Amino acid sequence: MDTNLIDKARTLINANYISTTLSTVNKNYDVNIAVITILEMIDDGTIICARFGADKTYANLKETGKGVFLVLITPDNKTKDGVRVYVELVDDQQEGEYFDRIKARLEETAYSAFPLKNCLVFRIVDILPVSMLKK
Amino acid sequence: MDTNLIDKARTLINANYISTTLSTVNKNYDVNIAVITILEMIDDGTIICARFGADKTYANLKETGKGVFLVLITPDNKTKDGVRVYVELVDDQQEGEYFDRIKARLEETAYSAFPLKNCLVFRIVDILPVSMLKK
Repeated sequence: MDTNLIDKARTLINANYISTTLSTVNKNYDVNIAVITILEMIDDGTIICARFGADKTYANLKETGKGVFLVLITPDNKTKDGVRVYVELVDDQQEGEYFDRIKARLEETAYSAFPLKNCLVFRIVDILPVSMLKK
Repeated sequence: MDTNLIDKARTLINANYISTTLSTVNKNYDVNIAVITILEMIDDGTIICARFGADKTYANLKETGKGVFLVLITPDNKTKDGVRVYVELVDDQQEGEYFDRIKARLEETAYSAFPLKNCLVFRIVDILPVSMLKK
């Protein structure tokens, strides 16, 4: 993977923008998308994620394990920038170092009233820019 | 489906916001997301969509036929609003009334230099708000 894209992904994922989404799928190919914002890219290949709602997303990940995060920035509503981070679920923790780490992050946000249910651990499979359109 | 949600979907889809995305999946459950903006909800159950790039999205739709549009509005970067529209591909046209209609829309946008490849016709399966989080 491209070093610039890895750095860009880290910056955008860790900013926890309200426009961050995670798309997932169940075994019947029903695709879902949810706003998922409490995340941390803890190294070049790993993202940890706070799960407190997002029931369908969680069920989908337990079924197929695959998804893609999008951080989309549209500063003037005319230009867009961002990153797509393709992931696979590798762990689902209810305690431990990662759980405590993402819990601390959750508690600093507007979602602090929601009890943390899971710390989802994802392996980064690929990173792409938002658009690859060529004339 | 809720009438208010149908009306909201029509307004948001037809606004062609730059933040509109379509999530799709291939047979191996690899999920993709792409910014897809040139759309029109032509009745309560149908969306037509201009396809000029988005090669992976197009291939995924040809494989599994299912996806979800998200229009996400984050006016002050602190609050969010929008709609999720779950769809199934029902037709893929290279000519005809719908093709001409979405081509005319495409030509009024910043993407007018891109030749229209397909007019994708989707059946709306479900419409949900952006968040269903409850305390």
